[in-house]
Amino acid sequence: MSSQRIYNFNAGPAALPLPVLEEIQESFLNFRKSGMSIIEVSHRSKWFDDVINDAVDRTKRLLGLDERYHVLFLQGGASLQFAMIPMNFLATGRTADYVDTGTWSTKAIKEAGIQKKEIAVVASSKDRDFCYIPEDIKFNPGASYVHITSNNTIKGTQWQSFPDTGGVPLVADMSSDFMSRPLDVEKFGLIYAGAQKNIGPAGVCMVIIRDDMIKLIGDGLPSMLDYNTFVNKNSMYNTPPCFGVYTIDLVLKWLEEDMGGLSGMESFNVKKAAILYSFIEGSDFYRATADEGSRSLMNVTFRLPSEDLEAAFVAKAIENGMGGLKGHRSVGGCRASIYNPATIEGVEALVAFMKEFEAKNG
Amino acid sequence: MSSQRIYNFNAGPAALPLPVLEEIQESFLNFRKSGMSIIEVSHRSKWFDDVINDAVDRTKRLLGLDERYHVLFLQGGASLQFAMIPMNFLATGRTADYVDTGTWSTKAIKEAGIQKKEIAVVASSKDRDFCYIPEDIKFNPGASYVHITSNNTIKGTQWQSFPDTGGVPLVADMSSDFMSRPLDVEKFGLIYAGAQKNIGPAGVCMVIIRDDMIKLIGDGLPSMLDYNTFVNKNSMYNTPPCFGVYTIDLVLKWLEEDMGGLSGMESFNVKKAAILYSFIEGSDFYRATADEGSRSLMNVTFRLPSEDLEAAFVAKAIENGMGGLKGHRSVGGCRASIYNPATIEGVEALVAFMKEFEAKNG
Repeated sequence: MSSQRIYNFNAGPAALPLPVLEEIQESFLNFRKSGMSIIEVSHRSKWFDDVINDAVDRTKRLLGLDERYHVLFLQGGASLQFAMIPMNFLATGRTADYVDTGTWSTKAIKEAGIQKKEIAVVASSKDRDFCYIPEDIKFNPGASYVHITSNNTIKGTQWQSFPDTGGVPLVADMSSDFMSRPLDVEKFGLIYAGAQKNIGPAGVCMVIIRDDMIKLIGDGLPSMLDYNTFVNKNSMYNTPPCFGVYTIDLVLKWLEEDMGGLSGMESFNVKKAAILYSFIEGSDFYRATADEGSRSLMNVTFRLPSEDLEAAFVAKAIENGMGGLKGHRSVGGCRASIYNPATIEGVEALVAFMKEFEAKNG
Repeated sequence: MSSQRIYNFNAGPAALPLPVLEEIQESFLNFRKSGMSIIEVSHRSKWFDDVINDAVDRTKRLLGLDERYHVLFLQGGASLQFAMIPMNFLATGRTADYVDTGTWSTKAIKEAGIQKKEIAVVASSKDRDFCYIPEDIKFNPGASYVHITSNNTIKGTQWQSFPDTGGVPLVADMSSDFMSRPLDVEKFGLIYAGAQKNIGPAGVCMVIIRDDMIKLIGDGLPSMLDYNTFVNKNSMYNTPPCFGVYTIDLVLKWLEEDMGGLSGMESFNVKKAAILYSFIEGSDFYRATADEGSRSLMNVTFRLPSEDLEAAFVAKAIENGMGGLKGHRSVGGCRASIYNPATIEGVEALVAFMKEFEAKNG
C-alpha cells in the first residue's frame, strides 16, 4: 500500500514519517499488549502515562531544556495561543512587543487587541508584502515579552537567527519549524507549536514555558485558559488529545533515534531546501518570492510566469503524484512545504518534475 | 489480533466499535486513494471536506436537527465549554440556572464563578452524595439558560427525562451519554459532548447550538472562544482535530447503518444495562450506588462489601480480560462503563465473572 503514497507537499496537516505511520497502523487494535487501541486506552492508565512522559522527556532532551522549562500539550492550535498569551501575561500595567511578519503574526496581534491589551508592534515587513524578516529592531526594555513567528508558512520566510531583545523573553509561534533545527532555548520564555506541520497530527499544540513566565500569570483566569492548570497536572487536568500526544511521541523517537536529533535534522532540512532553492535560482521560469537571507527551510514559495501556468503546474503535479503545491489561498502562487518528514527523494522528484514542466511550457 | 482484545469498561477514553477501528487501520497509509494518511491530508482538501460534512449531516439526521441548529467540532473538551458557555451567553445583566448533580456539574458552576457571572444553583443532590437526579425544580423564568449534566459518569446517575424549564433553553453537558438515545432536541439551546466516551477519541468536543443562543453572544470575545467563529467557518477557522472528526464520522456511520440509529441504540443500551442492574439487584454481595429511577444506562456504579474486596475484584477482572472496572478515584468503589460500543457479549462475560467472584468471596 505504501507504494501508492504520493509526495505530500501540503503546508499542514502535512507528511509524517512513514515508519511512524506504519507503527500506528500495526498496533492500532492492540496497543502495547493492552488489548485496546491507543484511542481506547484511559488517560489515567500506566500505558498513557508512559506515552506522555516519554514525549516530555524526549522534548527535553532534544531541545536541551533544564528544570525551569515545562513541556505541555494543549488543544485549540496556535490560534488559541494567540489569545492565551496576552490573557496570561498582560495583566493591567504590563505591555508586550510584537513583530509582524505576516498572516499568523498579524492574527496574534489582533487577538491581543480584542482583549484590549497594551502591545506595541515594534517592526513589520508589511511594506513589501512580508517577503523578508525585519532587522535592527528597537525593543521596549519594559515589555513582558517579545512575540515573533519563527517561520511564516504562507509568506515563505523564516528567522535565520533570533534577535537580541536585551533580556526580554521571546515568545515564539514555532508551529511550522518546531524541532527543525537546534535552538538557543535560553532566549525563549515560551514556545508554542501546532503539531500538524513538523511533529504530529492536527489537534495538539505543544507549549514550552519557563518558570519566569509562569510567575507573570494573573489571577482569575478560566481553568482551561491558565497555563498553571497544565503545568500543575502534567497536561492532564482533563482528558488530553491522547492520539495526538502518542503520535508526537513516535515522531520525536524518530527524530532522536533515526535522524540524529536536531543537528541531524537541520542538516537534512538544509540539504532539501538547497536542492529546491538552487534549482529555482538557476531558472528564469520559476521565481522565489522571499528575499535571500529570509528564506524558509520549511516552506518554499515561488511563482511561475502566469497564474494560468501556476494552475496548470499544480494540476499536472497531482497527476504526477505530488500533492499540496498550491500556494495559500490568500497569496496565490506555488508552495512546496518540506517539513522534517519530507524526503530527499521527494524533493528530487519535484525538481525533476519542475524541469520537465519548464521544458514543455517555458 | 482482535482476539487479544479485552472487554473495555473504561469511563473514557473508552471502547470504540471494532469495525470502526478496523476501517481506520486498514486505510491508515492511504486514505480513500489520496495517497496520504488521514492524519496527513489537508483540512482544506475535498477529502476532508467530505469527512466533516458527512459527520455534520449524520449528526443532523440522527438527532433530527432542523436548520436552526449548527453542528460544531471544538477542542479543549467539556472543560473548556464550562468556561465558554458563561463567557458567551452571560453578558452583564444576564443570569443562568445550574443544577448540580456531581463532579462535572460542580466544575461547570465553578467556571462560571471564576468569571464572576451571575448564576443560581437551583437544585443539587449533594445532600446524598449525588446519588440521585433532583426533581420538581423551580427555575428562574428570566434565566438565559438552564445548565444540566445529562449523565454523571462518576456518580452513575442520568436524567431519565428532561425538566420543564418553562421555555428557558437547556444547555446540557452530554459528554457521557451523547447519541445513546433519542432526544427531544427542541428543549435544548446548546448540547456539548467530549467525544471520548460514546462517539470517538479524546481531543474533539462536539457542540450543537441553536440560532437563539447565538443571538445572545456578547461582543469582544477572543476568536477561538466565540461560538460564532465556529458557526461561520464550519468549524474550520483554524485546523480542526481532523483525525478525531474522521473517527466520529465512522462511529456515526456505524450508529446509523449498523445499530438502527438512536432508537436502535437505546434498545441496545437498555438491554445491556438491564443485564447488569438486574444481576446486581438480585445479589447481596454487590450493591448499586445510584437510586433506582436515577440510574445511568452508561455508567453502572456499585460497591462490594469492603474496599479490599473491591481491589481484589478489579485486579482479578483484569486477569480475566476485563479492564477499567475501578471507580473514579474521587469516589472509590467499582464502575462498569457500558457506552454505545460496549457489547452484550462483554456485559454477559462481566456478569459471569461477578457471579464467580461472589461465589469465591461471598
